[in-house]
Amino acid sequence: MTSTVRELAFIEALTRGLTRSPLQVNALQESDAELVRLSAGTTLAVTTDTVAEEIATGLYGDPWLAGWMAVMVNFSDIAAVGADPLGILIAETFPAGLSSTTLAAIQRGINDACTACGSHVLGGDTNEGATLQLTGTALGLITAGTPLMRTGIRPGDAVYSTGPLGAGNAYAALVVMKEHDLPEYKPTARLREGTALRTRATACMDTSDGLMATLDQLARLNGIGFELSAEWRTAMHPDALACSAATGLPPWVFLAGPHGEFELVFTVRERAVDHATEPLIIAGTACHYLGRATAGGTIDLPGVGKFSPDHRAALRNLDPPGTGSVQAYAAKLIAIGTSARESTLS
Amino acid sequence: MTSTVRELAFIEALTRGLTRSPLQVNALQESDAELVRLSAGTTLAVTTDTVAEEIATGLYGDPWLAGWMAVMVNFSDIAAVGADPLGILIAETFPAGLSSTTLAAIQRGINDACTACGSHVLGGDTNEGATLQLTGTALGLITAGTPLMRTGIRPGDAVYSTGPLGAGNAYAALVVMKEHDLPEYKPTARLREGTALRTRATACMDTSDGLMATLDQLARLNGIGFELSAEWRTAMHPDALACSAATGLPPWVFLAGPHGEFELVFTVRERAVDHATEPLIIAGTACHYLGRATAGGTIDLPGVGKFSPDHRAALRNLDPPGTGSVQAYAAKLIAIGTSARESTLS
Repeated sequence: MTSTVRELAFIEALTRGLTRSPLQVNALQESDAELVRLSAGTTLAVTTDTVAEEIATGLYGDPWLAGWMAVMVNFSDIAAVGADPLGILIAETFPAGLSSTTLAAIQRGINDACTACGSHVLGGDTNEGATLQLTGTALGLITAGTPLMRTGIRPGDAVYSTGPLGAGNAYAALVVMKEHDLPEYKPTARLREGTALRTRATACMDTSDGLMATLDQLARLNGIGFELSAEWRTAMHPDALACSAATGLPPWVFLAGPHGEFELVFTVRERAVDHATEPLIIAGTACHYLGRATAGGTIDLPGVGKFSPDHRAALRNLDPPGTGSVQAYAAKLIAIGTSARESTLS
Repeated sequence: MTSTVRELAFIEALTRGLTRSPLQVNALQESDAELVRLSAGTTLAVTTDTVAEEIATGLYGDPWLAGWMAVMVNFSDIAAVGADPLGILIAETFPAGLSSTTLAAIQRGINDACTACGSHVLGGDTNEGATLQLTGTALGLITAGTPLMRTGIRPGDAVYSTGPLGAGNAYAALVVMKEHDLPEYKPTARLREGTALRTRATACMDTSDGLMATLDQLARLNGIGFELSAEWRTAMHPDALACSAATGLPPWVFLAGPHGEFELVFTVRERAVDHATEPLIIAGTACHYLGRATAGGTIDLPGVGKFSPDHRAALRNLDPPGTGSVQAYAAKLIAIGTSARESTLS
């Protein structure tokens, strides 16, 4: 086994020869958005993300959703650094002969998402290409204090999410299984929560790739582990629990798949409270207590196993499920879970 | 005939339903980069441009050039608003099985272009897709004074370019004709000139789509025309003149095709000087005098014709030349030129 995450190694190799800006605050992977110092008190946040594979596989087959997601995946990164949204640019590649109805639905999705974020399309570019592809580049501004980053966690910090988890993977599973009766999937970037967390959290990252990938990334960057609460199932989204019941797959696999729900996962310095009776409210949102950071290198999911860096790399290195192969993909996740349990017992 | 430029009408329709930011300085098409007011004295410039069709058609078949251009087309827009470059993000779509040699060449092109611009890659995104596609989003900052825009020209203003013109179309013609012995095509964004022009020029736009499209756009936005100098041929790039001689095509068609050279075309308030003996030097660059803005609505190319908005729309609405069809494409340009000459005489 290896603890190397293929995607991280690829990006590391791709960027090795690039010189870095002296104005850039973050190193590679250290924050959800790139952070550029503009002046003493002001930091620009900027991030780019393409929605392509999700359209090609049919996950965002609804053109409105494709437009919505091209905006949201980017503003979610702006939220995770605690910036106020400044605007977004969208570069759109359209296949020849795309209907005006489809075009209009994409644009409506883009504008609806901007409205939901209190932001605006600043500009863009259009091209013709083989397949529909939408690249957003979102901008945000931090005019006081320092940005939120993925680094800064100490063992003992409590870890929370801004919302229930697992809905992204449940939605993806149902699309791949060609279910007609899909639950609503409409993530909204946690911008208000992000700005409120800026002075509160020790670290933050969105769950764009699912909870397990998020916790793994935070663990790697901070040289720590996590021990989830025995009640981690209470943080699961009802859609994920329903999908678990319908498919017979264990709930935790909906936290381990690669399609996220764009909540913020964040840490705060240890709170000696009863999490059940004293919830953490951030910008009006009751956050879900997930557990604690630990000095150890594993991610402990009570009732499932202790996932070492190798186990987590194995999870993240799985190819995402092709059409109809949800059960086969889940079987691989479960096998890794079994290995994590067995190494815990041995 | 129609004066409607298909691309402009498409973008207008695409953006009609989008709400605009109150912080945005420019309206649609009014500047090469989007301009966002950050504070009293500071404006952020941001622009996104995808290199896709040029790769698909083989125009940027060299992966190093594809990387170089993904950076340069964007910083050229930053130059045209007079901003200092702040950095660039690159979203890259790679086809499956792209060799590591090709990948390395793309990244080298990106980094070489950044170095030439005195700037840096800040971040990016990678995806898998059917074809290679590179989307750059460049950022720039204007910390004092107002940005350069495409608007602001008055009849009588003198019009210049920062370098010789026509090399972009000559290069494209030779690639399409499958010439093996290609001239070097390596445009470099005119960033120093752009910042120097900010306090000097009345308007500015880059020649990313060739001179004629640039002048047409400036004429439309400002409600003016242009009368080029009788010596406009002296502003032509030697590569374009050589290609003209080799193909027998008249020189002006290399100013009318859609593939530009990324010079800046700009206007200054009338100068009562002998342009032959008193050149305009901007940031050390001797600029080429092209002619004057006029109150009339035509673009007069002495020895060719007076191009009405209809003629210019016809030029811009031509489909770019497919493989081997340079002569057929040029014949259509020449037919429009003939029409422009005849309507001048009638």
